[in-house]
Amino acid sequence: MKLCKVIGTVVSTQKDDELRPAKLLVVKPIEPSGAFTRDIELIAIDSLDAGVGDTVLVAQEGAVVEQVMNSTTVPANTIIMGIVDALDVAEKSQ
Amino acid sequence: MKLCKVIGTVVSTQKDDELRPAKLLVVKPIEPSGAFTRDIELIAIDSLDAGVGDTVLVAQEGAVVEQVMNSTTVPANTIIMGIVDALDVAEKSQ
Amino acid sequence: MKLCKVIGTVVSTQKDDELRPAKLLVVKPIEPSGAFTRDIELIAIDSLDAGVGDTVLVAQEGAVVEQVMNSTTVPANTIIMGIVDALDVAEKSQ
Amino acid sequence: MKLCKVIGTVVSTQKDDELRPAKLLVVKPIEPSGAFTRDIELIAIDSLDAGVGDTVLVAQEGAVVEQVMNSTTVPANTIIMGIVDALDVAEKSQ
Amino acid sequence: MKLCKVIGTVVSTQKDDELRPAKLLVVKPIEPSGAFTRDIELIAIDSLDAGVGDTVLVAQEGAVVEQVMNSTTVPANTIIMGIVDALDVAEKSQ
Repeated sequence: MKLCKVIGTVVSTQKDDELRPAKLLVVKPIEPSGAFTRDIELIAIDSLDAGVGDTVLVAQEGAVVEQVMNSTTVPANTIIMGIVDALDVAEKSQ
Repeated sequence: MKLCKVIGTVVSTQKDDELRPAKLLVVKPIEPSGAFTRDIELIAIDSLDAGVGDTVLVAQEGAVVEQVMNSTTVPANTIIMGIVDALDVAEKSQ
Repeated sequence: MKLCKVIGTVVSTQKDDELRPAKLLVVKPIEPSGAFTRDIELIAIDSLDAGVGDTVLVAQEGAVVEQVMNSTTVPANTIIMGIVDALDVAEKSQ
Repeated sequence: MKLCKVIGTVVSTQKDDELRPAKLLVVKPIEPSGAFTRDIELIAIDSLDAGVGDTVLVAQEGAVVEQVMNSTTVPANTIIMGIVDALDVAEKSQ
Repeated sequence: MKLCKVIGTVVSTQKDDELRPAKLLVVKPIEPSGAFTRDIELIAIDSLDAGVGDTVLVAQEGAVVEQVMNSTTVPANTIIMGIVDALDVAEKSQ
């Protein structure tokens, strides 16, 4: 899982109605300091009513989507699975 | 899932006829601003009749292909699963 | 699997209570020399009571989480699966 | 899936005889223009009698190997699944 | 799969005894020329009695570990699945 910040929302047309009810958010990987990394933005489904500006935990694997959504028919492989409440990093990365 | 722009089409010879009917498109990852990232172009099957220039959502996992195509025999692990209608990004990445 | 160093802890709100009891740690990939790489920090569940400063083995795949935790309902795909006791690298990478 | 060019062959000793009959090729990711990217070379099994210099579609996931090879016992997760016949890219990446 | 060179060994404490008997090696991705790439070192289980200095084929997926080790309980997703005997690369990457 990666730390990300929610930076926006996306509305899209899907072939599969299963995905449509899920809110899709734009998230961008961050360092523990809060700084954005060079990694590409991801589109994630939201399981937690996260909002823009929230620091979140994002998993990129269909099996995790299945477990969190308790459904094997959600056609997505990226999900916001946690909203970060506290982050304590003792040693800064170089 | 990633934001991508459709930039072309590809025709190929496959061992497996299952993939042949699916349209194969060349997509390139973009930032929410629309700018291309440095990431490599991907070849994705199209579930939505997307066209060159469309902004799309791309998933890279065989399990998502199975769910969207409703088939366990499509030998592909990259799929255009959404066409982006609206994108609202409140905070620009650095 | 990758070599990482544990650099912190994270507390988060999850939709799924299954993940809550697992300790979540912030880990950062390192070279065998101990130097941090440019790779992004990861959030991993801990199966071994690892602590900040430990050098650990991290796997990023839901199937490994299932095997180590002996559970198919842990919604996570990154896990600390080993604490490194000894590392012997004969040939330095360039 | 990625566009790659076949750049060589590899012969190796495997524990598992299942893989031995499959031809192993060295492929390198390319841009649609044909230029090599900075991405690392991959070793892929060949399902199509591809040859050095061919432009191919490469998938990196065990499930795709299973589908194309119609076998659950091929211990490989990278496969040449298409030989590119035509590539039409309307918009050049930056 | 990727080409790697074995550069060392690692001893670690695991929660799961299943992994303990397997030798863990430190491998680093290389180009066909033998030069190290910028990619991070990986920790792989060894199925072939590989040694430091060997050029090997490494797969990063739990399903391949299962197939090669003929076991569904090995908690690992990176494996040395071949020792390279001969490598013939006709066209050098840029």
